[in-house]
Amino acid sequence: MRGPGAAAELARPIAPASYRARRLASFDHPGAADVAGAVWWGNHRIFYLSGFAFAPTERPIALLVRRDGEAWLFVPRLELEHAQAYAHVDRVVAYPEYPDVEHPLRHLARHLAELGIEGTIGGDGDGAPKVMGYRGPALSSLTGAHFIPLDEELETTMQVKSDEEVALIRESARWAARAHRILHDATAPGLTESEVEALAGRTAHAELVEAYGGAYRALSWAGSGPYANYRGQVGVHSAFPHSLNVNAVFRAGDTLVTGASCPMFGYWSELERTMFLGEPSADQRRYFAHMLALQDLAIDGCRAGRTCASVDAAVRAYFERHGLRATWRHHTGHNVGIRYHEGPFLDVGDDTVMRPGMLFTVEPGVYVAGLGGFRHSDTILVTDDEPEFLTDYPRGIEELTIPV
Amino acid sequence: MRGPGAAAELARPIAPASYRARRLASFDHPGAADVAGAVWWGNHRIFYLSGFAFAPTERPIALLVRRDGEAWLFVPRLELEHAQAYAHVDRVVAYPEYPDVEHPLRHLARHLAELGIEGTIGGDGDGAPKVMGYRGPALSSLTGAHFIPLDEELETTMQVKSDEEVALIRESARWAARAHRILHDATAPGLTESEVEALAGRTAHAELVEAYGGAYRALSWAGSGPYANYRGQVGVHSAFPHSLNVNAVFRAGDTLVTGASCPMFGYWSELERTMFLGEPSADQRRYFAHMLALQDLAIDGCRAGRTCASVDAAVRAYFERHGLRATWRHHTGHNVGIRYHEGPFLDVGDDTVMRPGMLFTVEPGVYVAGLGGFRHSDTILVTDDEPEFLTDYPRGIEELTIPV
Repeated sequence: MRGPGAAAELARPIAPASYRARRLASFDHPGAADVAGAVWWGNHRIFYLSGFAFAPTERPIALLVRRDGEAWLFVPRLELEHAQAYAHVDRVVAYPEYPDVEHPLRHLARHLAELGIEGTIGGDGDGAPKVMGYRGPALSSLTGAHFIPLDEELETTMQVKSDEEVALIRESARWAARAHRILHDATAPGLTESEVEALAGRTAHAELVEAYGGAYRALSWAGSGPYANYRGQVGVHSAFPHSLNVNAVFRAGDTLVTGASCPMFGYWSELERTMFLGEPSADQRRYFAHMLALQDLAIDGCRAGRTCASVDAAVRAYFERHGLRATWRHHTGHNVGIRYHEGPFLDVGDDTVMRPGMLFTVEPGVYVAGLGGFRHSDTILVTDDEPEFLTDYPRGIEELTIPV
Repeated sequence: MRGPGAAAELARPIAPASYRARRLASFDHPGAADVAGAVWWGNHRIFYLSGFAFAPTERPIALLVRRDGEAWLFVPRLELEHAQAYAHVDRVVAYPEYPDVEHPLRHLARHLAELGIEGTIGGDGDGAPKVMGYRGPALSSLTGAHFIPLDEELETTMQVKSDEEVALIRESARWAARAHRILHDATAPGLTESEVEALAGRTAHAELVEAYGGAYRALSWAGSGPYANYRGQVGVHSAFPHSLNVNAVFRAGDTLVTGASCPMFGYWSELERTMFLGEPSADQRRYFAHMLALQDLAIDGCRAGRTCASVDAAVRAYFERHGLRATWRHHTGHNVGIRYHEGPFLDVGDDTVMRPGMLFTVEPGVYVAGLGGFRHSDTILVTDDEPEFLTDYPRGIEELTIPV
């Protein structure tokens, strides 16, 4: 495996020309042969195709894309200037408000007619998603057009990252590691997870602002700046893989599971570590060793031409071989990019063949009730050659034991 | 209007018996007359009906509810113990993983059969939502059952808050105000929004932990503990109502718009203020005065028996009457509860009649390009009598001007 790289140059946002290329590519498959254009509602899909990051609410936002790549972003009045400043599209059109006296989708239907998108229309839904109390009609009922779902093809396209996407994820990982280091060094018995998390986030964020000046943008409504946290995975509570924060107080003997990331111009990475507060017991050492062996095995399997299923099958076989079935809770990992989780999955049920440019969090976990959880996660790039770490942080038990 | 209350007693989570009562009520309308039971996928709806808060991912989670109130929570293996510890249901059933060799919805179909839920099934979707790369079949195609959407009826039920819900939102507002006070007092020229936000969140969170000991739970995957922020609404950038964080550096003369809240056992409130860094100019004073007059007008209109539309119509008429049309960006407000935004909306297009127990963020905004945004938001309870503030924070320009 290649070693992690040295500190990168300052990352740059996705180039405007890339958005237009992505829009054209979104029609470049047999499923889209008959569509005049597409309407996209999902915020991550809109970001992928236009660069506009926003907070989704009950007010519909849609990207209207004609086959020739012409794109109009459809927003409520309150987002007009924001979209004009940030979206890489040909035009931003605004409706007054939702619900308003005229439903927003009636405005949208008129814009589709102006664009000449009619007959058969693709996209990720025949109407806006019903979130936060939104109610509304199907677009097909308003326009008379036939709707064809194109979301699975777009998902497939998004699974393989371009070089400029990988550069952003690599830089995300660098700041994740920095926040993690602060969290790691500040953790001590008697403190709460919340205060240590706040220190790590605040300090790393200040360093990032120092490095980037005003040029840094998260471009994600899910957060801004680096963070590192425990999310309740402290002591016996770390045996819940998706625990939420419980304001845990650290105690000597705790098994700790962390998470760290940083949105970087819209892109995420994932770094997680198992740590111990004080010298680990024989049991803690044993499960840690299994976890590390499992992760090594899985990372080595992330190679072009193999299936995602093959990686998870090897991991599950290790669990069986070592009598660890009772400690198994989840598959080996997932893709990561604009969303923190995305397909394909390192799972026995996912037959996707791995290709260079796919990324995976590799994070087999071992969970022991009454003792704790054991899970590292690294972000691994599939290449033409060896699997490559985008995350760079110590993985061994000595470096992850916090003296008390 | 009633004044804001004194400091509340420590809040308590929703009582377990309330979840069963909510489930029974979810069938108590004509639209559900023929269903044998329901399947709920939305995380906020599952929380409302079971008390289980979780991080939604590509792995489907569903709540299966029979007409007699019997409820099974269907989770991936990794959430089993977490759900057993926190969900108020009769049984938790787990499937191994998604995608896995057998699709999770096939497991779910078997559980529905075990529960005797067949024939006609209600809920909020005929299959799991397609998020984070999830792919899967319609539930009706697996079970042969007929699907009836019940989400709009549940939304309507959720619009009116019970006394125990109002108590949690009131306590959320109290901690929001505390975080806001810290943010307010720490803001000064030369600092960045990020560092002031981090201080406010960290300090208020520590105070909350001190007050509640280990009993506090956010019960929300969207955050934990009090926070107050600017979210990029600093100086001229405050003219974007839904700006994202831009690491702004404060400067004398800035118009500032804030936001503060705190998840309290799953429930949210909303507090926002317009502030000035240094003595406001004549223009800043003028728009502030309009904004305050608009908010007074709107709050006074939040009375049982009137329509939501009437409040927004009065606000829009004020904009017209004072020549402010160019500064209008959005409707007057929204309901708030388990979700930060929910219906009904204070909007000319929403004819819902207000009832005691409905809550609204009241937040008419005035936005001036090149100068800034002007918006307060308070969380207001509709009662049998006067509108009641659940948020408690100064609203006047003198108290919101930060000396430099």
